[in-house]
Amino acid sequence: MATESSSKLQQTATVPKGFRFAGITCGIKASGKPDLAIVVGDKPLVAAGVYTTNQIVAAPVLLCRKRTPSSKTRAVIINSGNANACTGEPGERDADEMSRLVAKHLSCDAEDVLVMSTGIIGRPLPMDKIKAGIDDAVQKLQPDHDAFTRASTAIMTTDAFRKSIQRTITIEGQTYCVAAMAKGAGMIAPNMATMLAVVVTDAPLDQYDVVDALRYVANRSFNRVSVDGHMSTNDSLVLLSSGAAGGETLKGSRLNAYRDFLCETCIELAKMLVDDGEGATHIMEIRVSGAESDDDANEIARMIGESLLVKTAITGGDPNWGRIVSAAGYAGRPMKPDMTNLKIFGVSLYENGTPIAFDANAVSKLIRETTTVVMELSVGDGTGNATRWASDITTEYVRFNSEYTT
Amino acid sequence: MATESSSKLQQTATVPKGFRFAGITCGIKASGKPDLAIVVGDKPLVAAGVYTTNQIVAAPVLLCRKRTPSSKTRAVIINSGNANACTGEPGERDADEMSRLVAKHLSCDAEDVLVMSTGIIGRPLPMDKIKAGIDDAVQKLQPDHDAFTRASTAIMTTDAFRKSIQRTITIEGQTYCVAAMAKGAGMIAPNMATMLAVVVTDAPLDQYDVVDALRYVANRSFNRVSVDGHMSTNDSLVLLSSGAAGGETLKGSRLNAYRDFLCETCIELAKMLVDDGEGATHIMEIRVSGAESDDDANEIARMIGESLLVKTAITGGDPNWGRIVSAAGYAGRPMKPDMTNLKIFGVSLYENGTPIAFDANAVSKLIRETTTVVMELSVGDGTGNATRWASDITTEYVRFNSEYTT
Repeated sequence: MATESSSKLQQTATVPKGFRFAGITCGIKASGKPDLAIVVGDKPLVAAGVYTTNQIVAAPVLLCRKRTPSSKTRAVIINSGNANACTGEPGERDADEMSRLVAKHLSCDAEDVLVMSTGIIGRPLPMDKIKAGIDDAVQKLQPDHDAFTRASTAIMTTDAFRKSIQRTITIEGQTYCVAAMAKGAGMIAPNMATMLAVVVTDAPLDQYDVVDALRYVANRSFNRVSVDGHMSTNDSLVLLSSGAAGGETLKGSRLNAYRDFLCETCIELAKMLVDDGEGATHIMEIRVSGAESDDDANEIARMIGESLLVKTAITGGDPNWGRIVSAAGYAGRPMKPDMTNLKIFGVSLYENGTPIAFDANAVSKLIRETTTVVMELSVGDGTGNATRWASDITTEYVRFNSEYTT
Repeated sequence: MATESSSKLQQTATVPKGFRFAGITCGIKASGKPDLAIVVGDKPLVAAGVYTTNQIVAAPVLLCRKRTPSSKTRAVIINSGNANACTGEPGERDADEMSRLVAKHLSCDAEDVLVMSTGIIGRPLPMDKIKAGIDDAVQKLQPDHDAFTRASTAIMTTDAFRKSIQRTITIEGQTYCVAAMAKGAGMIAPNMATMLAVVVTDAPLDQYDVVDALRYVANRSFNRVSVDGHMSTNDSLVLLSSGAAGGETLKGSRLNAYRDFLCETCIELAKMLVDDGEGATHIMEIRVSGAESDDDANEIARMIGESLLVKTAITGGDPNWGRIVSAAGYAGRPMKPDMTNLKIFGVSLYENGTPIAFDANAVSKLIRETTTVVMELSVGDGTGNATRWASDITTEYVRFNSEYTT
């Protein structure tokens, strides 16, 4: 995936052309930390989104679903500290009002403003603070790295560190920039948190190509990571394209190269979410091959990554092949037990359906001393494969999430 | 479910007529604890089984699948301490050999002997110890409560307590007895454990009726409980009927009454498995109603019971409706968010899609002071409903399962 473009990738401090950013404190969070971010296009933007499939869905997600895809989006307003979820019709009115307040400043339609929220659920948004915050934020919009960083910081909730990435790629002599920010992984205290991600780019893209590309990317990045397997009511990934890098709209092989670049970028960002899993000590990189389809491989990898017994084994440095193989076995997808093989860090533990002798102490030592634990499971002779990333689980996770918070 | 027959149920120390039992120590376990149990019918028995759907399946399960249903089963031999799983063809030969050794003593066909194993996986059975154990056990067969208890004890692995139940029911003047034993819940150290259950009865039953009844019962009892959601390679439920209580083979309304009695008995036994969940401090009783089908309700309840965030909330005494409602929302089954209501201990927390004011401290106190936490979630106006039981999760579970064991 995207291996061809790897050599062309560059981590950078530049941001895509055609955008301005702000991140400020408006007082939603009791902590006084930044809690309002805004991303604005100088001109109308191409926008697409991928949203939670949870049936209990927050008001801003309902709003964004209606307003994407689009070729005339002007801004995304994002608040942290309050998810505006399970807030009924008043919540929907508040989300719409947030977009109206931004639209007024930009002299655009409210329909051209997207809204994201993350934080505590079941409580009304403090609209007075948000209104004042929007008035403040639009004054502070800047088109640079520092402003992008401030925006990335303002979307955090209980994240231990800020998650953002800035990269450029050159395709057939034309350079494009992507900057992406994300927050949260898993559902977090006090009630729940959310995976929010905003990706901005100056590549010229068609809105319908963006829909396909974003779905492709989401399925290989953000949909491939899990901390606790709990899907939130607010999960959203939005991509905005200004086209300001210039040149023709990307199509064909140039579009494919760009999509792979985007995919690799989002995988890096998604892995940061796993790395920040509450109390996690390891990232499991679970590579499944030999399945009948990629989807089957993905589901088998998901079952392994979400198995409590696999997670606790890795926490304890235990190369426990029995837990891994049996988790694969209950994924409900076709596999060939007699052709099942497992390696951890390249060391073979299980071959053709039978455990084999290996140096358990050496593998245990590798697990304990390495953050990313690579497991390779082949489940037959099919062509389906998938890689997923999942955190392990520690007593710290249980302690943190069982603290009384309601 | 089975409410009509409740008044006729009696806990008893009697065992069904037509069976003999033994439980001994043959040395499979290093601890020296009992590790070999046998259940024998005086005459051919009607037998049926329900087995793990894991594709990685242990040798004794392969054997039992072939040999049930049957109307001429004579015995079940069960060892603990070694699961004979992931042992390849030699494991299959060992399982068959166990049945041959028993058949020789009973002068029956090996095909009429069932085999169950539980314990560590990936290691060959110590067949010399098992052979000597079988020779010993058949000498000690007794048709009484104490022998049944010894057999129930010999199937335990890391269970904190023995799980068995003995009951009688009178239907239209005829009394039938059921005795059932089970072990394990969730996958347990050192590698994994198993849900094994053996139900014996003297009710006269047709083998094909037993298949249907057992599937019905399993889906409402053992398939409704979870500790960590990890399905083992050995899970098995076998029912044996001697018919020795006499009278006509149960059919029609008498069969239904008996099935409901069996169901209620197995629910009690299944709840013991949850109660013994490693480190668990609560049983969650999750009642879902208003779904489009019972199957939908069951799946929604399963998602709630297996959510780490719901489990940790209950551990912490936190009436966190957000985690419960959002877990229901990602079950992938139809629900009506606007008609969703949640009660804990009868206290309403969430009504028609909106959180409502409640005394959080009072509900928290109830959770902390009560072992079984009753949650009632209605998800629409459908007729589908289901009840499931799940354990919470504590730091103790994580500590226990992350100890290095391989």
